[in-house]
Amino acid sequence: MTVPFPAELAVARQAAAEAAALISGGGVPELVREKARADLVTEVDEAAERLIIARIRRHFPSDGIIAEESASRLEMQGRTWIIDPLDGTANFVHGHPFACVSVALVDEEGPAVGVVHAPFLGEVYHGVRGGGAFLNERPLKVSEVASGPAGLYATGFPFKEGKGDPELYFRLVAEVVGRSHGVRRAGSAALDCAYVAAGRVDAYFEIGVSPWDVAAGLLLVTEAGGRVTGWPGDTQPPLRSGRVLASNGRVHAWLEELVGRAGV
Amino acid sequence: MTVPFPAELAVARQAAAEAAALISGGGVPELVREKARADLVTEVDEAAERLIIARIRRHFPSDGIIAEESASRLEMQGRTWIIDPLDGTANFVHGHPFACVSVALVDEEGPAVGVVHAPFLGEVYHGVRGGGAFLNERPLKVSEVASGPAGLYATGFPFKEGKGDPELYFRLVAEVVGRSHGVRRAGSAALDCAYVAAGRVDAYFEIGVSPWDVAAGLLLVTEAGGRVTGWPGDTQPPLRSGRVLASNGRVHAWLEELVGRAGV
Repeated sequence: MTVPFPAELAVARQAAAEAAALISGGGVPELVREKARADLVTEVDEAAERLIIARIRRHFPSDGIIAEESASRLEMQGRTWIIDPLDGTANFVHGHPFACVSVALVDEEGPAVGVVHAPFLGEVYHGVRGGGAFLNERPLKVSEVASGPAGLYATGFPFKEGKGDPELYFRLVAEVVGRSHGVRRAGSAALDCAYVAAGRVDAYFEIGVSPWDVAAGLLLVTEAGGRVTGWPGDTQPPLRSGRVLASNGRVHAWLEELVGRAGV
Repeated sequence: MTVPFPAELAVARQAAAEAAALISGGGVPELVREKARADLVTEVDEAAERLIIARIRRHFPSDGIIAEESASRLEMQGRTWIIDPLDGTANFVHGHPFACVSVALVDEEGPAVGVVHAPFLGEVYHGVRGGGAFLNERPLKVSEVASGPAGLYATGFPFKEGKGDPELYFRLVAEVVGRSHGVRRAGSAALDCAYVAAGRVDAYFEIGVSPWDVAAGLLLVTEAGGRVTGWPGDTQPPLRSGRVLASNGRVHAWLEELVGRAGV
């Protein structure tokens, strides 16, 4: 069987690898400015983004590009590359190894190619629609945990002004913690999704997520046999609403119910 | 300069390495019983503990031993080894790589030797009182982050019956998240301490911690130049109270104030 999107996958992997090398080569960088609280931006972040964009434009000049640092429009029409040159920026700034480059190609049918490259963990994830998901070339499969209470979960903490209600959200987190094997907060949405795909956690839930945080990661989840939806009642898909449930499929309904009741 | 406790360090490292090999050799194990919610115990956990205890008894037959799975008494009189054969058990059971073996020797002056061996991360931390802390032989130093709001924090979620008030605790976590670069929840207290020692997070706070969770990790923090205390107002030291603040020293007072106000 031929893998779909071979040229796109090759470019995505190469661009992510170059950006990862740039990010991991210079040690912990200086801050250049603060956007808002934990939303830090570093010089290296912006340089990595320029590098990825340049490579994509060279190979696919007519594709659209949405990237975190230069995001001007959130149009996803036709083929669009969605780039986070450094997901887990706060971790990176502190020398915490949970940080990665995320590169995805989305078309009319949704995510088509996704690469999550975590240089400090030595892990490169990639997925292609219809072609499977892989960690360092090893095929990935979501976990087989069948009941919500037997699950381990990943989440992010919404911390930006105007994005959700922290108190309600932490009540939900406490609820999931109290009813399950636990909740992990690693600080990188892209890697949280990759962990679901790898079967290391059974589901990931978050709100206030930007498309570049999860476009690649969500493809890994579906290609590893998992399920991706918005939150209960949402009318928009998760890449637009920023409200994500990504699971092994089996614990999805359980988590949906808890999340729905939380009123977040 | 000669390193203090050379024989004890060698035995601790060897025992931890053997236990780590046992733990990482068999893939994800079956559960044998559930203690309470996320507090899972696996066969491999108990086998690893027997292995460590046997090695310590062979070399230091008159020392006391406190170990998680066979803990009968919490007497820390004279020289006592404090062992967690598998910290981060819930992670381990789910195939999440944040799990480790923790071996410490405590004497009248406190922790003397500490080893935290994380086989799935390829990281072995060790520390000796007066001899420094190391990650894979590289000397460790806590971070230089000087202000609380510029810090990244690690915590655990207290989940056992009767240990703290989850609602109050999550209010505290939300407060720290809202005022800082963020809070991480990795699921292994020993590794959280090791991350403070490595400068990857700026402080770790938790309640309801058992001595075997942190005896080795807290030595890593102090030997890397950090500071370890109980929570404000505590009359017992953290290894007895299970209430731990471990920081780079610089953000300690800021965190103490937030934690003190929380009333947890």
